[in-house]
Amino acid sequence: PPPRSGRTSWSLRMSEAAQRTTNPIRAIVDNMKVAPNPDKPVISLALGDPTVFGNFNLHASCVDAVKKQLDSYKANGYPPATGMEVARDAVARKYSTPEAPLTSKDVILASGCSGALELVIGALANAGQTMLIPRPGFSVYATIADSKGIKYKYYDLDPSKNWEVDLDHLEAQIDETTAFILVNNPSNPCGSVYSAAHLRAILDVAERHYLPVVADEIYADMVFSGQTFTAMAQLTSTVPVLAVGGLAKKWLVPGWRMGWILIHDRADAFKDVRVGLQKLSQVIIGSNSLIQAALPEILHNTPQSFYDETNAQLERHAKVAMELLGKVKGLKVVVPQGAMYCMLGIETDLFKDVKSDVEFTEKLMAEQSVMCLPGQCFKYPNYIRIVLCPAEDKLREACQRIAEFCDHHRK
Amino acid sequence: PPPRSGRTSWSLRMSEAAQRTTNPIRAIVDNMKVAPNPDKPVISLALGDPTVFGNFNLHASCVDAVKKQLDSYKANGYPPATGMEVARDAVARKYSTPEAPLTSKDVILASGCSGALELVIGALANAGQTMLIPRPGFSVYATIADSKGIKYKYYDLDPSKNWEVDLDHLEAQIDETTAFILVNNPSNPCGSVYSAAHLRAILDVAERHYLPVVADEIYADMVFSGQTFTAMAQLTSTVPVLAVGGLAKKWLVPGWRMGWILIHDRADAFKDVRVGLQKLSQVIIGSNSLIQAALPEILHNTPQSFYDETNAQLERHAKVAMELLGKVKGLKVVVPQGAMYCMLGIETDLFKDVKSDVEFTEKLMAEQSVMCLPGQCFKYPNYIRIVLCPAEDKLREACQRIAEFCDHHRK
Ligand SMILES: Cc1ncc(COP(=O)(O)O)c(C=O)c1O
Ligand SMILES: Cc1ncc(COP(=O)(O)O)c(C=O)c1O
Repeated sequence: PPPRSGRTSWSLRMSEAAQRTTNPIRAIVDNMKVAPNPDKPVISLALGDPTVFGNFNLHASCVDAVKKQLDSYKANGYPPATGMEVARDAVARKYSTPEAPLTSKDVILASGCSGALELVIGALANAGQTMLIPRPGFSVYATIADSKGIKYKYYDLDPSKNWEVDLDHLEAQIDETTAFILVNNPSNPCGSVYSAAHLRAILDVAERHYLPVVADEIYADMVFSGQTFTAMAQLTSTVPVLAVGGLAKKWLVPGWRMGWILIHDRADAFKDVRVGLQKLSQVIIGSNSLIQAALPEILHNTPQSFYDETNAQLERHAKVAMELLGKVKGLKVVVPQGAMYCMLGIETDLFKDVKSDVEFTEKLMAEQSVMCLPGQCFKYPNYIRIVLCPAEDKLREACQRIAEFCDHHRK
Repeated sequence: PPPRSGRTSWSLRMSEAAQRTTNPIRAIVDNMKVAPNPDKPVISLALGDPTVFGNFNLHASCVDAVKKQLDSYKANGYPPATGMEVARDAVARKYSTPEAPLTSKDVILASGCSGALELVIGALANAGQTMLIPRPGFSVYATIADSKGIKYKYYDLDPSKNWEVDLDHLEAQIDETTAFILVNNPSNPCGSVYSAAHLRAILDVAERHYLPVVADEIYADMVFSGQTFTAMAQLTSTVPVLAVGGLAKKWLVPGWRMGWILIHDRADAFKDVRVGLQKLSQVIIGSNSLIQAALPEILHNTPQSFYDETNAQLERHAKVAMELLGKVKGLKVVVPQGAMYCMLGIETDLFKDVKSDVEFTEKLMAEQSVMCLPGQCFKYPNYIRIVLCPAEDKLREACQRIAEFCDHHRK
């Protein structure tokens, strides 16, 4: 008789959920497979990791804070699923404002901002429901949704308006399946920083449709001179907002995998969702206990000068890139206002043999050994994203090579 | 006109996935709400966290290994989604055997063993498919499956045979929806350690039905004198095995959230599943980079005496508990062989006013200030689980109080 399992051979398939789950950056980059020019050392402007170049380092006080926890032999046990009270309290104190007050109960810690996004997306949307996400935008939103069978629609950002949201397009995407609107400010990949007025206009759309907002504010406070970061939750007392953030960027430790959710719910709309977030947080118990225990010192004892210097360096780098790339014919440059990225439009009709962003990045690698991500990674063809983190001389050299590349390939 | 969202008020519900997701330990313990006896200090035998009592501490060399990474300023960036090569290599070298060889490509790191289980369960089973899990057994298997809409059936363990698997019952659970068999050895909550012969018998069932095995071996090597831990993968070259483990228990750092998957696939049945695991690992990029970078030293430089002393202390504690509880009328004790737990059967018909495991644990807390988990947390009513980790004098006192409690309540 056939076995009760009905199986007669070892033909195992990955689950449908795994099949659905892809990281588009990985998929596109892995398909590139272009060897760099052996005569030029590779300079990568591809990875959103400020630590790999050696010129951005965490502050020594953060190292000491973690060492202190190691020496205590008291921070090695299981933290509660939502995070240690001292750590949640530290996050609440850091981000509480008079307009949008927070206590430790409004904070959930997670394994990186990605882990926070996974909890938030998983708690707010059913399989088959839709979230609205920005285009161009960070790819992990879709990766997480795909893994859960949650759908998404893109709303457009407008490069001619410093990547502001096209509000009409946003509103046109809304239908009865919409679960929430996700806003990323400051933006990866755009390097844009929204004004309070623009954020209010987005909140107005949310309010009209009773849609909660997920605010991805991992680049909070990372803005250049003349720009102000405004936390979305400060601007509304009616629209419920789940803001996500973490140590990765501002504290320059993406590998530490420390993220958080801030539950802003002054109108009591998230009562049930809050419980849902707590339930989902019990599945894997996200983040490292040493970092949790060190969080009060990391968040509250890192000197302001550290943050200022990070922003100043990023701003200097942005200036260098704009000086060198701003006047290159064939490139449309949108001057970044914060974060650590910049998008460059490729005017393909001005080039003789570069038909797309993917072809641009491939040939740039093959000829100039400069690695960038094609806009397709962010659902935005004919742009490329550059990272502003490499040391100034490297960045300068990379931009010069991009300019040279354009000179060679222009009609 | 009504808004396009169809919504007319802020009535937000958590997602169905969040509703389905529950941690039964949390649910049962939170419902107990019993105040301890104010005249007796509380002793908790409830939490599977060896670090909370102060008598089990990680080895100083592990502290130094992490400090070294902090001082290097080189281990703060994003690790690859599946884990750093040096870390995966360290795990492979630690667990490779001639019968079941491993290389770094066969290792995936995750956020704790729970994170490893989440990847494994998510890669092997579709929503609606079934996994077979032990009863009594660790509750997170069901929590993970519930969050994904994956079903499960329980197979029975037999307390009269040191909690061996009831093989007929296991086989009877198999049907066309079965995706895999999960085996936990050494066991939480049983403290049992299976012989190679018994593991082989389980593998025979898997083989007959072409079902892969998930081996939860987080308590690998934590066995008492006369017992031998056998990794399941060593016993088969045909049944594909995903073994999960981590630093939590053997290295006494559950809060560090470092877990791993070992892909044992000598018959090439997991080709597709392996890709699925890699895809799913890209969603949140699990574990802390400092701990990953320190993993070679943690796994390979911790002295053998550290492991031996942990096991010796646990075994002494098990002896103390058995001496004090073994002859108490009304308790059925199954002598543990490893891990850090022991199950005590409650012969409710011998008690005048203790009708269930939940009532036992509640009254024990109220009268004796001793906290244990009722067997219902592990789907096994009329047993309670005790943790063997507290310092010997505390454990002795707790067992004496349990004995006294039984004396008071026996018919
Ligand atoms: C916009 C945005 N959100 C979230 C993340 C993820 O952050 P984490 O590394 O903490 O998971 C990133 C990382 O690049 C990002 O750019
Ligand atoms: C059998 C078993 N598997 C897995 C785990 C989870 O381990 P981790 O804390 O590394 O997620 C535990 C924790 O108690 C356990 O007992």
